Amino acid sequence: MQIAMVGLGRMGANMARRLRRAGIDVVVHDVNEAAVAALEAEGFTGARTPEDLVAALAPPRHVWLMVPAAHVGSSVDRFAALLEAGDCLIDGGNSWYRDDVDRAGPLAERGINYLDVGTSGGVFGLERGYCLMIGGPHDAVAQMVPVFDALAPGVDAAARTDGRDGPVTAEEQGWLHCGPSGAGHFVKMVHNGIEYGIMAAYAEGLNVLAKADIGTEQHTKDAETAPLTHPEYYRYQIDLAAVTELWRRGSVISSWLLDLTAAALHEDPTLDAYEGRVSDSGEGRWTLHAAIDEGVPVPTLASALWDRFYSRERGDVAHRVLSAMRSGFGGHKEVKG
Amino acid sequence: MQIAMVGLGRMGANMARRLRRAGIDVVVHDVNEAAVAALEAEGFTGARTPEDLVAALAPPRHVWLMVPAAHVGSSVDRFAALLEAGDCLIDGGNSWYRDDVDRAGPLAERGINYLDVGTSGGVFGLERGYCLMIGGPHDAVAQMVPVFDALAPGVDAAARTDGRDGPVTAEEQGWLHCGPSGAGHFVKMVHNGIEYGIMAAYAEGLNVLAKADIGTEQHTKDAETAPLTHPEYYRYQIDLAAVTELWRRGSVISSWLLDLTAAALHEDPTLDAYEGRVSDSGEGRWTLHAAIDEGVPVPTLASALWDRFYSRERGDVAHRVLSAMRSGFGGHKEVKG
Amino acid sequence: MQIAMVGLGRMGANMARRLRRAGIDVVVHDVNEAAVAALEAEGFTGARTPEDLVAALAPPRHVWLMVPAAHVGSSVDRFAALLEAGDCLIDGGNSWYRDDVDRAGPLAERGINYLDVGTSGGVFGLERGYCLMIGGPHDAVAQMVPVFDALAPGVDAAARTDGRDGPVTAEEQGWLHCGPSGAGHFVKMVHNGIEYGIMAAYAEGLNVLAKADIGTEQHTKDAETAPLTHPEYYRYQIDLAAVTELWRRGSVISSWLLDLTAAALHEDPTLDAYEGRVSDSGEGRWTLHAAIDEGVPVPTLASALWDRFYSRERGDVAHRVLSAMRSGFGGHKEVKG
Amino acid sequence: MQIAMVGLGRMGANMARRLRRAGIDVVVHDVNEAAVAALEAEGFTGARTPEDLVAALAPPRHVWLMVPAAHVGSSVDRFAALLEAGDCLIDGGNSWYRDDVDRAGPLAERGINYLDVGTSGGVFGLERGYCLMIGGPHDAVAQMVPVFDALAPGVDAAARTDGRDGPVTAEEQGWLHCGPSGAGHFVKMVHNGIEYGIMAAYAEGLNVLAKADIGTEQHTKDAETAPLTHPEYYRYQIDLAAVTELWRRGSVISSWLLDLTAAALHEDPTLDAYEGRVSDSGEGRWTLHAAIDEGVPVPTLASALWDRFYSRERGDVAHRVLSAMRSGFGGHKEVKG
Repeated sequence: MQIAMVGLGRMGANMARRLRRAGIDVVVHDVNEAAVAALEAEGFTGARTPEDLVAALAPPRHVWLMVPAAHVGSSVDRFAALLEAGDCLIDGGNSWYRDDVDRAGPLAERGINYLDVGTSGGVFGLERGYCLMIGGPHDAVAQMVPVFDALAPGVDAAARTDGRDGPVTAEEQGWLHCGPSGAGHFVKMVHNGIEYGIMAAYAEGLNVLAKADIGTEQHTKDAETAPLTHPEYYRYQIDLAAVTELWRRGSVISSWLLDLTAAALHEDPTLDAYEGRVSDSGEGRWTLHAAIDEGVPVPTLASALWDRFYSRERGDVAHRVLSAMRSGFGGHKEVKG
Repeated sequence: MQIAMVGLGRMGANMARRLRRAGIDVVVHDVNEAAVAALEAEGFTGARTPEDLVAALAPPRHVWLMVPAAHVGSSVDRFAALLEAGDCLIDGGNSWYRDDVDRAGPLAERGINYLDVGTSGGVFGLERGYCLMIGGPHDAVAQMVPVFDALAPGVDAAARTDGRDGPVTAEEQGWLHCGPSGAGHFVKMVHNGIEYGIMAAYAEGLNVLAKADIGTEQHTKDAETAPLTHPEYYRYQIDLAAVTELWRRGSVISSWLLDLTAAALHEDPTLDAYEGRVSDSGEGRWTLHAAIDEGVPVPTLASALWDRFYSRERGDVAHRVLSAMRSGFGGHKEVKG
Repeated sequence: MQIAMVGLGRMGANMARRLRRAGIDVVVHDVNEAAVAALEAEGFTGARTPEDLVAALAPPRHVWLMVPAAHVGSSVDRFAALLEAGDCLIDGGNSWYRDDVDRAGPLAERGINYLDVGTSGGVFGLERGYCLMIGGPHDAVAQMVPVFDALAPGVDAAARTDGRDGPVTAEEQGWLHCGPSGAGHFVKMVHNGIEYGIMAAYAEGLNVLAKADIGTEQHTKDAETAPLTHPEYYRYQIDLAAVTELWRRGSVISSWLLDLTAAALHEDPTLDAYEGRVSDSGEGRWTLHAAIDEGVPVPTLASALWDRFYSRERGDVAHRVLSAMRSGFGGHKEVKG
Repeated sequence: MQIAMVGLGRMGANMARRLRRAGIDVVVHDVNEAAVAALEAEGFTGARTPEDLVAALAPPRHVWLMVPAAHVGSSVDRFAALLEAGDCLIDGGNSWYRDDVDRAGPLAERGINYLDVGTSGGVFGLERGYCLMIGGPHDAVAQMVPVFDALAPGVDAAARTDGRDGPVTAEEQGWLHCGPSGAGHFVKMVHNGIEYGIMAAYAEGLNVLAKADIGTEQHTKDAETAPLTHPEYYRYQIDLAAVTELWRRGSVISSWLLDLTAAALHEDPTLDAYEGRVSDSGEGRWTLHAAIDEGVPVPTLASALWDRFYSRERGDVAHRVLSAMRSGFGGHKEVKG
């Protein structure tokens, strides 16, 4: 099995390595020549140009794009022009699934297969393996099975589910053909939407623990802020690093995200290295779009997105309007922070 | 009709004035002697001590407390000790309705009536009148009708509702006996919960209008933040003062809160006088408590409360936890603000 | 001044009538001939076809489309083909503002002006007037001032805002040129987003009042549901019709939506005529889209949309998943309803 | 080490068994004699009355209560009366942490230690171990270390966190002394609040996947509901059982709750066994109470609670109010379901 990996950033380079370890012949390319040279030094075949890359592959060719979202469209165009009927182009990035639907049609007319592959695994994928959510034509998926098997974590990464005792399925290996074009990125999009929600649940809960000592603080009494009625019930100094470590074993909320949180808090118990401005990439937003189109309530996933907007002070005008209203009807003054 | 007004702040003093204009005999008291003297200068009978106040009233006495939330409990105790069977004590402040239930019982045993009156109207009440939500025993309410009629705005403050063409009811005057002890403050609590939600709806919508020019901004492209796909659709410079003025006439969302917002924006179109730190008093919190106890979903009222907490940067630990998680699984760096 | 009104439904017919009362010459058209005939019977000039309509107008022509959202695109195409340079086409419906941006460009190349007008006022507009939010080229707006003045409620519909004592502005009449193409529908979109939020605030609050008697109910004790700790605080029978009537006068939350709510509850105190399945048209959804694109938190507006989805039982799969999880980790059985 | 276990339901009986396997002498009691007899048949020492139980223990006695929430208060009173200075009473149930604070004081005056222990682990605890969150005096905790070690899962239940390479701490075993009285149940309360949020995140995301085929449905066009603009993007038949199985390996959102969800969907792919009425016990509610008192925004945790209320149709009055308003301003009719 032979494949080309285009885009040798953190994700692409490690995926190339994991494939090679599994005995797959990987040709690599990146617009950054140094990234190509680095992998050549590890023994990979490098290609300096798209043309060289395509020339280095035997038909039917498989070209896996692992490039930043902003460059997927141009990369698809660039490589599609060089491929021919029977070849296969794979987008492994975080594209909007609708772009997959729009791209697959014209390529199919030329006999070129297009697969959209949502890839989860982050910086740990080289060792842990990658969870792959795949959309596109059945035959193209079938040709790629050795690649998916090599990238996925494998069945041993988790205990088998009760009742699953026959032959190991693809989803138990850690990859799944989710449906026609776009289905892979659709499932990945929702995966990330869920990720936002889970992260927010932990974060909000830890915030409640962090402020459980509010009853020990001295509060200036002013007419503007609701006073704490029972300070005697809020005098706990909770050790967040210890609590998150604790929950990793035996609790209902153990998870890989909790493992990471416990590690971060162990290293830096107050997380002072962070300012708390939380970015968001597209999938959380797109999940809301899809839910709105489908008429599905997603208050939890939405609140996680709004929370990130608040963290970047995007609620500013709303807050000033509220203060102005309060001044208008009640003569309330702001308590300056 | 004679009544005592205790607490001569913004609300209490104006209520005393409105009662006097209606021909009611008002004796006034405040712990601040200057406040008493000021109203004496307007012709009111002032009392320097609770004892003097009670002595100045003919039984059955009516004592209306209009004191800050933190002092209601002690004021009730102070005056209750001086009153006797047949007298009536009224709490017109923003107390938790459960305190009313707890207070009314022991007073009833001594034959003293206790009324809880939720009062809306703010700084405009002297001219506009006060909307009164009343809880307590029926007979005590009946004795106070002249007082409630004097304080309330009166039926002419709004067009009569279709189908209401018989005699004018109390609620059409602007006051209502809502039920037994606590019912007045319960209804006022929910009133304020609704107020939070309405305010937030306007504030969030105006924020969306204020940022409708985001497509004209220069954005540095970074891998951490979702890019704006179609800047050409976000190039509007919306005049918030004009829009809020516009909506006052003929639109579905005209309201008194909108009137205030339009006035604030006319005076200060960018609201730069405000920092955007929004306080909250108890009613919004208590409304959530009640909804939780009742098992009633109140996502809109809740989001308005969380929004105020965000405005005071109380989401800080949660936001740092999110950044730490993102660093953990994806190596994402924070984009500093 | 002469104008054509296309689409003689509830909104279009009344707008035609209001314009005619103001002395404007209105030619009317609808695909439904009976609707045309009905207005002809009132003295309007009717046109049976688009061609007849255009022929009946003196250049420069003004054609106002007031057709259902699903037919705006085809109507714009149909009439644009018949118009010529200097003419003006107005979309007064509830279109997505992006469609306005896309439509205006090609028409401008042919010298045809296109205006997008968001129209609020509902079934009461004939008497109350319509609040108009307008986007498009300045000159085209200027030509239409008599039309906008006639449709709008006029300054007397509300007290003038403090500090606005010069000449009456357009927004004080009840219409506003909000910006270039799309700006009118953008402002209308946010207006409706706010409307959803305000409606939800009232609805949730009234639900809390409606269930304030939960302490008087007999509850079967089961291990699955949180018991009510203090039933003694939830024994109120609140009269929703009286309370909403009460709040209309003197309270902070008086509004036109409250007026309507009080009227509905006066007519049908338990609202048994309604099943509680709440539809939503596009603007609430689009407001969320815009907020997501702008990175603006709109938790309150969002919760109002999710609430409508819940009312139509679109949370069904999520709820079954939750029950399955609870069964999985705790052996919890569902309490059947 | 000797301990008494009171309450032999699903949790208590399994905890007794796990303790006995670890060589601890466990005396058991339950108001249900059959439950006592069943454990006696397994070799446990049973006690028929509280008096017998206390008599069977050597001082200092340790009595662990594992009784339903509604009976904790009376059980504490019952056993406290029989204990003496130096003894220790443990509440391992789901009590409100404030009750612990209130109970601990009077017991401490008599020299009796009181520990509150939040216990997570559900029906799998016998094999998996229990995660224990403990509040109370330091010395009392120290005496109980063998018990906590026996109940907890032990360090091998998860890989050690990077940087934790010294001696194994208590939290790495799976138990933690969180602070003074109430701290254990406080941390457990927040744990469950987080659990609600995580569950809702999965549930909402799966709902979005389940309705990804909405574009293939036939929709009747009506004026009341927003139409789906692009049905071509919603034609996916997603296999929820396969997707949740997939996510268990290599994805960012793998967790124990996901394991359970995958198992439930494997067994019953459409979850038809469930009606979707989701109960809630107290901890989710109390977490919101605490967040409100602390002024901490918890929109994600809150939405998970409201979601459960919606699932039990507790939004009914709000929904009817919304329909009535829509009828009032726009003449909109409900689309019956």
